This record gives sequence, C-alpha cells and structure tokens, in this order.
Amino acid sequence: MTSSIQEGDLVFLYQDARRSWVARAGEGRFHTHRGYLDLKDLVGLEYGVFVRTSLGQSLAVFKPRLLELVNSFDRPTQIMYPKDIGYAIYQLGLKDRDTVVEVGTGSGALTGALAQAVAPNGRVYTYENREEFLRSAKKNVEKTGLSSLVTFRNIDPSQGFLELNADAAVIDLGDPWKMVAPAWDALAGGGMLAGFTPTVNQLEKLAEALRECGFLVLEAVELLMREFKTETGKVRPESRMIGHTAYVTIARKVTVKE
Amino acid sequence: MTSSIQEGDLVFLYQDARRSWVARAGEGRFHTHRGYLDLKDLVGLEYGVFVRTSLGQSLAVFKPRLLELVNSFDRPTQIMYPKDIGYAIYQLGLKDRDTVVEVGTGSGALTGALAQAVAPNGRVYTYENREEFLRSAKKNVEKTGLSSLVTFRNIDPSQGFLELNADAAVIDLGDPWKMVAPAWDALAGGGMLAGFTPTVNQLEKLAEALRECGFLVLEAVELLMREFKTETGKVRPESRMIGHTAYVTIARKVTVKE
Amino acid sequence: MTSSIQEGDLVFLYQDARRSWVARAGEGRFHTHRGYLDLKDLVGLEYGVFVRTSLGQSLAVFKPRLLELVNSFDRPTQIMYPKDIGYAIYQLGLKDRDTVVEVGTGSGALTGALAQAVAPNGRVYTYENREEFLRSAKKNVEKTGLSSLVTFRNIDPSQGFLELNADAAVIDLGDPWKMVAPAWDALAGGGMLAGFTPTVNQLEKLAEALRECGFLVLEAVELLMREFKTETGKVRPESRMIGHTAYVTIARKVTVKE
Amino acid sequence: MTSSIQEGDLVFLYQDARRSWVARAGEGRFHTHRGYLDLKDLVGLEYGVFVRTSLGQSLAVFKPRLLELVNSFDRPTQIMYPKDIGYAIYQLGLKDRDTVVEVGTGSGALTGALAQAVAPNGRVYTYENREEFLRSAKKNVEKTGLSSLVTFRNIDPSQGFLELNADAAVIDLGDPWKMVAPAWDALAGGGMLAGFTPTVNQLEKLAEALRECGFLVLEAVELLMREFKTETGKVRPESRMIGHTAYVTIARKVTVKE
Repeated sequence: MTSSIQEGDLVFLYQDARRSWVARAGEGRFHTHRGYLDLKDLVGLEYGVFVRTSLGQSLAVFKPRLLELVNSFDRPTQIMYPKDIGYAIYQLGLKDRDTVVEVGTGSGALTGALAQAVAPNGRVYTYENREEFLRSAKKNVEKTGLSSLVTFRNIDPSQGFLELNADAAVIDLGDPWKMVAPAWDALAGGGMLAGFTPTVNQLEKLAEALRECGFLVLEAVELLMREFKTETGKVRPESRMIGHTAYVTIARKVTVKE
Repeated sequence: MTSSIQEGDLVFLYQDARRSWVARAGEGRFHTHRGYLDLKDLVGLEYGVFVRTSLGQSLAVFKPRLLELVNSFDRPTQIMYPKDIGYAIYQLGLKDRDTVVEVGTGSGALTGALAQAVAPNGRVYTYENREEFLRSAKKNVEKTGLSSLVTFRNIDPSQGFLELNADAAVIDLGDPWKMVAPAWDALAGGGMLAGFTPTVNQLEKLAEALRECGFLVLEAVELLMREFKTETGKVRPESRMIGHTAYVTIARKVTVKE
Repeated sequence: MTSSIQEGDLVFLYQDARRSWVARAGEGRFHTHRGYLDLKDLVGLEYGVFVRTSLGQSLAVFKPRLLELVNSFDRPTQIMYPKDIGYAIYQLGLKDRDTVVEVGTGSGALTGALAQAVAPNGRVYTYENREEFLRSAKKNVEKTGLSSLVTFRNIDPSQGFLELNADAAVIDLGDPWKMVAPAWDALAGGGMLAGFTPTVNQLEKLAEALRECGFLVLEAVELLMREFKTETGKVRPESRMIGHTAYVTIARKVTVKE
Repeated sequence: MTSSIQEGDLVFLYQDARRSWVARAGEGRFHTHRGYLDLKDLVGLEYGVFVRTSLGQSLAVFKPRLLELVNSFDRPTQIMYPKDIGYAIYQLGLKDRDTVVEVGTGSGALTGALAQAVAPNGRVYTYENREEFLRSAKKNVEKTGLSSLVTFRNIDPSQGFLELNADAAVIDLGDPWKMVAPAWDALAGGGMLAGFTPTVNQLEKLAEALRECGFLVLEAVELLMREFKTETGKVRPESRMIGHTAYVTIARKVTVKE
C-alpha cells in the first residue's frame, strides 16, 4: 500500500480524537486553530507521517478511510453510525459482484459503504426522491472514488424499483413499510434486506410488513457502542455515549417452490 | 444473483432462529428432528425456496452467507461475533486489493471475513502457531470459497511477520502486546490495526504497547447487541443477551517524517 | 447489629454466587449436594460465620437481607429484579410513614420491598384479584417479618382503590393503563406513581394514559445491569447477562389549583 | 400525605424535564426565564398543584423528594446517580434501626439517601477529611431534614472508624482499598459493604483487597440507564445517555467460627 501523496488527493489530517479533517493536497492553505498547512507541501510525502503547522502543531496525514470521508460529508440528514453500517454490511453478506438497491440515499453515507463492499464488480442503485439530497449525496460519494459503481435515481420507488434479481435491498427512510413490496420484487430468491428504523413503532410496522409480504425476519437488533479511556491505571468507559441510533432489521426473501 | 443449486453446493437450511444448518446438495440424507431431506432433491432448485422434509417440516434453502458458513465452522476456539467482525472490518477500511496480516488464525472465522472484504484482488496472511488449529481453520475457510486469497502460516510471528507494507494488521490472541512491534514492521505507513481482547487488563496492556510503539490509538470500544422480539403489539428486547465478547481497539501507524 | 441465631430464625446459607439458600434454624437437616447441616447446630451461633456440612463443605451463615428472602419466594409470576426494585423505591422517594397502594401483588417481591421502605410506621395496600397468587404472596411476605405493615386485598381495583391520599402508587400488571385513573384517585396531590411494563407497547399505552389522566410523566427508563468477574488480572464483564426485564415509568400527580 | 405548604418549606418547582428547581416558600421572588413567582404566594397552597409565573409560565409545585433535594446540592464533587444509589441501598438491605459508616462524605448525596433508608431510628456516621467538603455536605444534608440521623466526622478513617458493629459500610473515594480493613473492623458479623469505583483499575484493586481481608465479594456490577421518549407513535430511547458512572461492588463480612 505504500504510496506518496499526489496533487489532488484527499488526505485525512488527524490532530486528536476530537479534531480531524479531510482536505485536498495541493490547494492553498488549510487552517487549524493552531496554525496552517501549505497543502502543496503535502504533495510527494508518504502517507502516514506527521507534519507540522506554521505554529508547530503536529498533525498526522493519512489516506482517508471510507468512514473518514463519510464523516466529512455534507449532511442534510442524520448520518448513519459505523457500528450500524459495519454490522449491516456483514449481515447482508455483501461482496464483490453483488447488486444492491437502496432507498433513501440521504447523504450517501451508507451508499458509499455499500459500494465499497461490492467493489470492484458490483453495483449499487440508490433511490432518493428529494432532488437536493440526491445532488448532495452524489458529490459526497464522488469523494470516495466509488461513484462509478453507483447509479443515483431521483425516483420514489414505492411503485417499484427498476432493478430485478438484486442480492440485497436496504431501506432507510421514515415509512419503510412502503418499500417492502417493491424490495421483494427487486430481490432475487434468497435476497437479503436490511431496514433501519429509529423508533420502536417503525420497527414494529416494518417487521409486520416484512412478514406479511413473505420475508423471513431473521433478526431485529440494536447495537450500543461504548468507548473506553485506556490510559494505564485509569481504564474506564467514557462518561457520555450515544444512547440510540436505529434498530436494524435483517430479513430474507423466500418463496414457495412452484 | 438468481441461480439454481448445483451438485456439491453448500446450502443453508433454515427452520427458525434456533434451528438452521449448512449442508451439501447431492449427498445422501440430511436429518432433522422432524424428518429428513434427500439432498439430491435440492439440485436444480432455485435458491431461496421452501422445501419439506419427509415429515412435512418446512425449511428454507438459501445460498449461505459468510456468517452462516462461519457459524458452521469447527471451533477449537471461541468464535468471534458478527457485531465485532462487522465493526472491525468497516473500521479497518478494508476493500479490494488490500493486504492484511492476522494473528492468530483460531478457527478462521475472522480470516474468512477479512478475505471476503479484500476480495477479489487482496490477500490475507494468517499466522497460527498451533498446528491443529491451523489445519482446522484451513478446512473451515475452504468452505467459504475464499481460500485462494489466504496464506496460512504455521509460524509464531512474535519475531516478525514475513510481509511488509500491509494495509492492515489484526491481532486476536491472549498476549496481543507481543505482536504490536511485529505488526508495526509489517504495516505500511498509515496502516490500520485492530486488536481484540476479552479482559480489561489485556485491553490496558495492548493500548499501552501500541502507544509506546508509536501507534495512534484511535479508539477502544465494546459493542453490546440486543435482539428484539417484533411480534405486533408485543415488541420488547429478548430476556437474555450476550453480556460481553471482546473490546475492540483500533490504531494506526504513523511515522515521523524524515 | 451483632446478634446470635435464635431457634426459628430464617438464615441465609451461602456457598457461592450460584448456590445459596434460605433455611430455618432449629428444624431438622438441610441438605446440599455436598453434605448436610443439622439446623439445630446453628442456634446460638453469631450471624456471619462459616459452618461446615457433614462432608466438609464450607457455608457462610447470614441474617437474610430482604432480597435474599425475595429470591426464596414461591413464584407463580416472574419476579422483579433488584435493579428495578431499588431504582423504583428511590425514585418514589419512599420513607417512613408513607402509604403506598400496589397492584398487582404477584408473588409479593415488590410488596416486601415497599414495606421495608416505609417501615416502621408506613403502610402498603396491595391488590391482587387472583386469589391463589395472593395467598402465596402473603406467605412470602410473612417470611420478611414485614406483614404487619401490609394489607392484602383480593380485589380488582380497576373500579377504584379503597385508599385515599396515598403517597405512592405502584402498577405492575399486564394492562397498567386500566389502573391509571384509580391510582389518580387514590393518590394525594403530588403523589408518585411507578409502572412496570415488559413490552414497548405497554410502555407506550401506559405513558399515554398517564398524560391523558393529568399525570406528569417524569421519566421512562430501562436499566441494564452487567456483572463483572473481578479476578486480579482477568477483569471482564460476564459473558451472559439479562437483556431485558421491564421499562420503569415514573409519574407524578399534579392538579390545577382551584 | 395531603398537606399544605408552610412558610419556610422547601418546594420543588417543575417546569419540564430540563427545568426544575428547589426553592423555599415565603422568601422573596423566584425568577425563571419566563417570569417570576412570589414565594409567599405558595404558602397555604396544597402540594401538587400548578401555579403560574408573572409571565404565565405554568410550574408544578411539589414537596421535594430526596433525589430532588440531592440534585439541588452544592457539588464540590461528582454526585452519585439515582440508579447507583437506589441499587446500593437495596443491595445493602438498609432498613429502620440500621447503622452505617460511610467514607467519604463528598457532597452528602449518598449520606442523605442512607439516612432516609435507616430512618427513623437508624444512624449514619460519615467521614470526610477535607473540611470544606464536610461543611458543604452538612448544609446539604440539612436540607433533607435528616441531619439528626447523621454524625459528620472530619477524620480520615484509614486508621479506623470509631464505630463498631455497624450493619453496613459504604466506601466512595479514590483509593477505596485503604478503607477495607477499617470497614472490616467497624462491621458486625455478616455486615454489608458497598464500594463505588469509577475505573476498572480501582474495581480490581478494591475486589482484591476485599478478598484478602476475608470479605465475600457477592458481586461487582455496572448499571446502564436508558431514558425513553414516550410520545405515542414515536417511542424510542433518547439519543444521548450517560455512558458510565461507577462500578458498584457488594461484599459481606464473614468470619471463621471460633
């Protein structure tokens, strides 16, 4: 993986757990509250080194991971958390060559992660009926370098997705039950579905719609993540944590043998 | 993805949340406590259909996901949970073409997931000094169809991994601090590291070793997963849950610019 | 508190975290899987000492706490957990001289705890319409020595409690919303209410009924308790835990000033 | 319980979950950001009614529970949470006539709760070697009306508590292991001990000290509390929660029979 920073590369600048940014090598100055960097000075450096700002603040310069790019997205909507994204992708069993349909695109955070999981030969079809969200999501996903794997559709798929035989369907919007029948039609036999719902009422209605449509509901879970302080001799969970994001429902299409 | 079951395919047979199995199409009979299946009758069926045992029990037949194959692994060691695997893979930012070093292989559960994440052009080098574990892990990973991406090494890497410039290192054994310096040497600049530790004491010592070696410790977390009953009008978390698996530590190699 | 064991005293025999029992000093033999105790040998001992069974197994002999007595109750119904009991009693602000109405009595676990909290001059009125439950609960509460503070009523209070000006009302049954109006009538101005509901649907309906009746819903919470292994050098949460018991809703009666 | 507000009574003024205060009836004006109350207007009202500020803001007026008084304490130190206080008091089995030793007093939050639990005939002896903390704690506990049950000692008890035959000992300070032997000496046979420790390292050292001293460590737990939004049709946990307060260790003194 060793490689040096090229003009125009996105770089991840890390000061500490609370202060980190994504910038582009080669363009002007990047200002922190403790001095600036000349972004052209980054060009030619190896990734994974410390640099110093004009005021001597040390910053680590990394090739951004997808989750760091996602954190830098413009966010018209609440963004999904790594704990939920990572779990859903593993549960969906996504891999190279898979095709996924997603609704709604939102800010594109999950879209990017889905694309990375099915790269290099898979495809993500993502639906969003709010045009300005879709425009913003497109720009966001372009940052990840995975846009070529994504088809953005400014369509409400409640009357049907355009795709057939998809390996997986992902539903992340306020009335997910409306998308259950369309997802069924879009999925191949045995295809996986993941739904994200912030409230228990949405979870209940989604699960009911899935069962009525013929899906097997494999599980409905919530993940709680606790961060730890690891200073030697003072190990303890952080005092504050995220109390809730969304319930994740995993289901699978199964049909009666003709 | 639509495809029909071929002779010799592994299939996932699902009765309910507590009763499911991996079998191979075409070979003899598969017995459940409610009748048997003739496994040759599965050949030619589409994936994602219901079949019936000799006693009329309905079973769904699926193409197995990686996590279902992993659940069917022989397990000389405690197996890692989906919540931890999914999170670590997303945090490590794994993708096509990445190379990963892993120690120890254990039963190969994580090995398979790492291989799927870096497929089709990446590579996983996995180290296990207990020969019988490695043999078992090899057989397990073969089930996943991802063996060609994995190099199994029956070596204790505490004196050094054989690889250089790896994108990620994964440490999952009882004394993870011993592998920190070897992981540093094996990683490219900016390379990611994930460590799994069941006890707080191991977490503390691992984090200390990482910092002393020069790694940035990005986070140390634990994930709690709660499953829900979703029957309409009776939604509630399950009465029992897994209370603890492992702390996950995420770190990154950063070097001083020469 | 030092005192010696009297003939007829209930004693708590503790072998380890999984094996402990309540017995009565003076009566015959108490059998464990590792020998027996002559219960008359306990009479005259100080509380808080080790004794040995006929086979040499060491047992600690304690004066039982309320929660140990509760654990020894006959249980026709699911018993409430200490985490929920302790929290509710503190939230209700119970203290000497308070009067509490409770429905339903169930096995009397909470009844005993309420009585202890309002002792020595308070009073608990507990309602249970299933006669056999009430009989069993009476016997259970007698073990705690707090029966004289408790009035057991074999009445369905959905048409009204017999008490007025109660300091607190506790609702623990399947359709708690039916008891909201009766609880309102039984409570003094500013009186506290605690409701226990296993499902989210019950929580939702209870909270709605409380607000419609005029209660201030102060909070609705769930408590998760994790137990730790504390062996030096191997500190970690237990692998298994209770995933869910009940949601606890705390409300307060407030009236419009005439 | 019905009673009317007297001149000089502490009252609890509740606007909503985030805005509530303790004030004293009869003294001047109480200012909120939405108008003021004349505190003499409260005198003679029944508890549990709504009043209006000069700008029409509705406030509920309650007799304060102990936990509301505790929330109004001056806090030189981190205050303990209801989930931990309620659990510990129930685990300690505290009741009328018990005597408790406590170190350190801190702001007196737990002291007040202990006093309420052993009222009206029990006693709490609380130790705090920082004089200014003790002064503040005394004032705080006076608000609860329970001061007459509490003896405040400006002594470091690491050389020994002055009491003997206590029913319970409570340890809440940074180096709790130093208080284990003194607690042993102060406790009656079978006496209970509760220790509160924010870090895992403190938990480990406390548990080790307890075992070495001869205590039975009954359990070490942490409690996580999640608050719920209960609006009909939108039930969900709150987005933020307290991630950690303290580990609670429960132990019991047991001696070898002479």
